[in-house]
Amino acid sequence: MNFTEPLILRSGEKLDSYHLAYETYGALNSLKNNAVLICHALNASHHVAGVYADAESASIGWWDTMIGPGKPVDTDQFFVIGINNLGSCFGSTGPMHLNPKTQKAWGSQFPVVTVEDWVEAQQRLVSALGIEKLCAVMGGSLGGMQALSWTLQYPDKVMHSIVIASAPNLNAENIAFNEVARRAIVNDPDFHGGNFYEYNVIPRRGLKIARMIGHITYLSDDVMNAKFGRELKNEKIKYSTQDVEFQIESYLRYQGEKFSEYFDANTYLLITRALDYFDPAKDYKNNLSLAFKELQASFLVISFKTDWRFSPSRSREIVKALIDNKRAVTYAEIDAPHGHDAFLLEDYRYLSVVRAYFEEIEKKINAKEQNNE
Amino acid sequence: MNFTEPLILRSGEKLDSYHLAYETYGALNSLKNNAVLICHALNASHHVAGVYADAESASIGWWDTMIGPGKPVDTDQFFVIGINNLGSCFGSTGPMHLNPKTQKAWGSQFPVVTVEDWVEAQQRLVSALGIEKLCAVMGGSLGGMQALSWTLQYPDKVMHSIVIASAPNLNAENIAFNEVARRAIVNDPDFHGGNFYEYNVIPRRGLKIARMIGHITYLSDDVMNAKFGRELKNEKIKYSTQDVEFQIESYLRYQGEKFSEYFDANTYLLITRALDYFDPAKDYKNNLSLAFKELQASFLVISFKTDWRFSPSRSREIVKALIDNKRAVTYAEIDAPHGHDAFLLEDYRYLSVVRAYFEEIEKKINAKEQNNE
Repeated sequence: MNFTEPLILRSGEKLDSYHLAYETYGALNSLKNNAVLICHALNASHHVAGVYADAESASIGWWDTMIGPGKPVDTDQFFVIGINNLGSCFGSTGPMHLNPKTQKAWGSQFPVVTVEDWVEAQQRLVSALGIEKLCAVMGGSLGGMQALSWTLQYPDKVMHSIVIASAPNLNAENIAFNEVARRAIVNDPDFHGGNFYEYNVIPRRGLKIARMIGHITYLSDDVMNAKFGRELKNEKIKYSTQDVEFQIESYLRYQGEKFSEYFDANTYLLITRALDYFDPAKDYKNNLSLAFKELQASFLVISFKTDWRFSPSRSREIVKALIDNKRAVTYAEIDAPHGHDAFLLEDYRYLSVVRAYFEEIEKKINAKEQNNE
Repeated sequence: MNFTEPLILRSGEKLDSYHLAYETYGALNSLKNNAVLICHALNASHHVAGVYADAESASIGWWDTMIGPGKPVDTDQFFVIGINNLGSCFGSTGPMHLNPKTQKAWGSQFPVVTVEDWVEAQQRLVSALGIEKLCAVMGGSLGGMQALSWTLQYPDKVMHSIVIASAPNLNAENIAFNEVARRAIVNDPDFHGGNFYEYNVIPRRGLKIARMIGHITYLSDDVMNAKFGRELKNEKIKYSTQDVEFQIESYLRYQGEKFSEYFDANTYLLITRALDYFDPAKDYKNNLSLAFKELQASFLVISFKTDWRFSPSRSREIVKALIDNKRAVTYAEIDAPHGHDAFLLEDYRYLSVVRAYFEEIEKKINAKEQNNE
């Protein structure tokens, strides 16, 4: 969808016009009160569920375990919207597109976007789809930050917020990991200050390192030991500093390689920065309870015990601030072994919690629909 | 000290001759039973204590809080030996030196060295100093692995082993962090396959990234939050993906910069590989208790609660295997906030434990000396 009303960003910069890629699943009901917006994290897109019919681009939606007919977020009941954020590289306006003012790729000139900017753009799309009020906003990790920010920016436009494996802001360690990844990209000679498109190169080395670092932090120590341990790639040790010796090395190199083939380097910088900046309590003397004063939505907050990047204690901060404000909140701490990645994986307990929550929402919606008949 | 007897390495390769840089502190007693060998970790050297008299190279030894006159390892009582390992970049033979066969810098041709190789070289130096049996071997992190390996390789040549913030082997996550750091170095175009010396360049970009990653993992989450939190470098957010915004970024960049000025890239690869390879239980069906069967030394094992890179549970594995073999072991789990770095820092409880242990050793030595008179 194309938007021509300028978007004033938190940085003070302005996007005169932009395109937002999105997908929808299921049908909007007559009361238009069954819309669920899904917000993505670092490297995902608007393609949240299902498989593309077109065989060439056949790829499963990134949250297909969660969303679809008969799934926890049941598209037979709910109208689900997947959206690609500004600055991302999967269809919405981003740094690889032409800057209308220069007629060159934006590159590093693409304005820095924040979670709040994304939410504002999302709201315009939701509104353009004829939806006054979202039944739910939902996301994991950075997506959870958006789901939270919606309830702060548009308290009367969202009924339920589902915040998974997220945090009210990044701590120093998380910012640190983001920074190392960014430096790896920026220092890659093929980055050319962000204008690599003009040179027909890609800062693959930097992207690989960034992804390898990310991958380590998405997994738990335990799951890495269970999956790889100290298993060797070859039967015997080769005594080499540059060849692969351990399976974990092979896995990480492969992940880095794959990522560098499809992900945009400038997008990586932009999205990690949005993560760094998000901090709704900042303007409230770092008091999250104060920041939540105008909230109206009900919440489902979920964390995973082995997630050391967005640990349960960070989710509990959100829960505490909600309780301080007497907001309805359901909180589940799932004992899944997979670390931060758990929010994308199939775990019966996790999916059951989400399913139960959406079944309750469904009842409320159906009751309203009957009242309306 | 120069050695001309060839050293056959675990890889099967051979070093025909080599130099080992070392320093000593205190005096060897008449019974020659008060010698303490200090083994270093990744980026340290033989300069373990004191300050060089020469003003130009004035630098405090890396374990000066621990070792010196009146300190926990009291150089008024003990003869302390600091040694620089083979392949390191502080004086002992390493990749930046001339390969006698080619008359060029070794570069990536420098043979891969293991903890066991280092210990063997150390033993030759200790023997050349006229010491039959070490009173103690001591080290933290990778240094602790050496202190442990001594007792396995030379069970009758070491009386006490002090293993601090260490592990019986690296887990998958640790190997993963090492691998990312190595890839950052190897992929730096200035690395030139390890032969950058010939090109008069240094793979600084890679070294910086490696060090930044390392630094994150040496600190605990808590100490990083306490020290830096989300503090901004400037008063206001600049909305930039490449400029420093947060203090933690500034700190990491500075650490990376400093490190890249003095540390050798090939040494980084070699030393992290030695860490990866160390695994004394490997030839014993991964049964550490079996691997420890021939041990004779007494142990002091210390871990730090907030150390997530070499967590207490890994130290407990060592302690358990020692107990299984009825070896004398003192174990202390220190509640220090600093993460892995704690082993290098001043913490009263930590230093007291080491002091008490060495005071006991001192008593034993003095008793022997009196018996001998």
